[in-house]
Amino acid sequence: MEVMRVLHMNKGNGETSYAKNSTAQSNIISLGRRVMDEALKKLMMSNSEISSIGIADLGCSSGPNSLLSISNIVDTIHNLCPDLDRPVPELRVSLNDLPSNDFNYICASLPEFYDRVNNNKEGLGFGRGGGESCFVSAVPSSFYGRLFPRRSLHSVHSSSSLHWLSQVPCREAEKEDRTITADLENMGKIYISKTSPKSAHKAYALQFQTDFLGFLRSRSEKLVPEGRMVLSFLGKRSLDPTTEESCYQWELLAQALMSMAKEGIIEEEKIDAFNAPYYAASSEELKMVIEKEGSFSIDRLEISPIDWEGGSISEESYDLVIRSKPEALASGRRVSNTIRAVVEPMLEPTFGENVMDELFERYAKIVGEYFYVSSPRYAIVILSLVRAG
Amino acid sequence: MEVMRVLHMNKGNGETSYAKNSTAQSNIISLGRRVMDEALKKLMMSNSEISSIGIADLGCSSGPNSLLSISNIVDTIHNLCPDLDRPVPELRVSLNDLPSNDFNYICASLPEFYDRVNNNKEGLGFGRGGGESCFVSAVPSSFYGRLFPRRSLHSVHSSSSLHWLSQVPCREAEKEDRTITADLENMGKIYISKTSPKSAHKAYALQFQTDFLGFLRSRSEKLVPEGRMVLSFLGKRSLDPTTEESCYQWELLAQALMSMAKEGIIEEEKIDAFNAPYYAASSEELKMVIEKEGSFSIDRLEISPIDWEGGSISEESYDLVIRSKPEALASGRRVSNTIRAVVEPMLEPTFGENVMDELFERYAKIVGEYFYVSSPRYAIVILSLVRAG
Repeated sequence: MEVMRVLHMNKGNGETSYAKNSTAQSNIISLGRRVMDEALKKLMMSNSEISSIGIADLGCSSGPNSLLSISNIVDTIHNLCPDLDRPVPELRVSLNDLPSNDFNYICASLPEFYDRVNNNKEGLGFGRGGGESCFVSAVPSSFYGRLFPRRSLHSVHSSSSLHWLSQVPCREAEKEDRTITADLENMGKIYISKTSPKSAHKAYALQFQTDFLGFLRSRSEKLVPEGRMVLSFLGKRSLDPTTEESCYQWELLAQALMSMAKEGIIEEEKIDAFNAPYYAASSEELKMVIEKEGSFSIDRLEISPIDWEGGSISEESYDLVIRSKPEALASGRRVSNTIRAVVEPMLEPTFGENVMDELFERYAKIVGEYFYVSSPRYAIVILSLVRAG
Repeated sequence: MEVMRVLHMNKGNGETSYAKNSTAQSNIISLGRRVMDEALKKLMMSNSEISSIGIADLGCSSGPNSLLSISNIVDTIHNLCPDLDRPVPELRVSLNDLPSNDFNYICASLPEFYDRVNNNKEGLGFGRGGGESCFVSAVPSSFYGRLFPRRSLHSVHSSSSLHWLSQVPCREAEKEDRTITADLENMGKIYISKTSPKSAHKAYALQFQTDFLGFLRSRSEKLVPEGRMVLSFLGKRSLDPTTEESCYQWELLAQALMSMAKEGIIEEEKIDAFNAPYYAASSEELKMVIEKEGSFSIDRLEISPIDWEGGSISEESYDLVIRSKPEALASGRRVSNTIRAVVEPMLEPTFGENVMDELFERYAKIVGEYFYVSSPRYAIVILSLVRAG
């Protein structure tokens, strides 16, 4: 699987598009906002002379979420400046995602974004001439590589992206020899599962560590001293990579695929060979890599449960949420639509475009049944890092 | 007509796409290369300490031409550096066009561009790590507004773009009152023509002057002192705005439209009301605006004839090129395809998508017949400007 080519959200604005099915990811952005705002405040206070701020959103995707994080950041900076008794600085905003992302959607939304920035900030000292001091550009490239000139950034944000790996992990033994890309042994599964061999667990963990280390290194020299990153992504609260919260969405998708394989609609070998370029990391793994890289200190590291629709969970509702059967099936449908908008482009090349409707129909039912007997959760990592001075 | 929304080349990669029909514009980029190379050399020599260069291509469009200018610039800088005995600087490249441009096409071509830059430059001191010191971003906005942070650019390039106006000129009398946008009186025509009233000539000239002045002002504070712009666009060698070389492509397109109106396929009133947001300026007009703006000096200003397929014309072939009928018709077809890829999105909202095939079929024949009796030319302006120190 060529991750660079197939890791993109469903394009456009249709029924199965990411634009129409990304409420969960929007909720995750909202969940991280408090930490983002805190980081921006600390940034502004430690850089009192700053007249131009470089901001990047890494893995911006397409649809309404693409400009949501950036809108939040612009609003926060605008609200902070009067409190800190200083003029609003020039904002250089970079929206990054892989080249296969639907950047046309973002570009088409920009005039409205500029209008909003202009109207809101008018007469409030936002640079000279309102939003004309907010410059947005798109940066199409992998965030696992270098994207930006040296020391050009002050604030980096990334939401619902860092759980995606740069490549599907391959078998340990062959890893040294780049000419062989042997598939993991992972029969009937598409991500780490209780039945996966330990070698698969290890390969996934290693791929994540390599990628996250590369991510930190690439950002390190681009951020100014005291620059800040706020990253939110799916992780796990346990060290066990087979806990429900870290892998059950894939487990149920594998079930849907296997049910189709049993009916001869797709080939079982294709399921064996397919592995998702995804990993849910624990706080221990994150800390270990951050320490190894060495140029960032951790300001905050929170891991909290959220429901599969991106809703936050209060202490009181940690237990099973009782749902009627129709409610459970409706949740299943929404979760299936959300997952489809994200993973369809990576499944299509292997399983074929023509089976996607059927696959996600089955997936919706399986997830719905599961919602009736369980209250599935993800664990969301919110990580706030500071570049050493 | 909302120029911001409809001024974009035909998207994608299909038969009528700009990507498949932009050889003429590619030829124009090649025609300007000598002047561009000269400007880059002067830039590098006047900034000997420079370690990071900001480059912008304004009106980059989509298709293979989008990265052609930038590839040329990267190659030229790479070739210059050993001659000047200096390391290749970091290159920050901005590709600009209106938000409705097909940026997805450009983004999808970037990995190949980076590969080429990496491979060509390997071991030749191109930054650290090859193409990783070339950072490309997309900037979706009108180049008649401010696009870039202050003093962030060293070299600005624009090809086949500045003849497009920011809006369709409207009637002089109403211009003061922004609430009225009265159409020009321009019966049966879609651009300046021998039958257009003087008021239409004047409105077009004023709109160009306003736009070009805004363009220079917006660039002025973004370019570093001694920064350079090389601009190529369609113009005119005479002061008369009704000469063949400045308007005949529109004259023949109006003929095609009028032939359809006579047969009741489209409404004549719509042709009367439609005016192209285009202007071919003379060197006198350009000099006047450059002087008025005041922060640029002219290093070069050339206006040369090119044929309608973008081919340069040597002194010897200034006269009529004799073509057989089939040759003339084939040229007509190619010119029609080229023009269609550019103007279809702005014609469609007025005349309807369903008449476009018929319109450009007729246009191809009319242009073909014209090629049999004439050798139509455009005048291409190549303008090299230096920002005052």
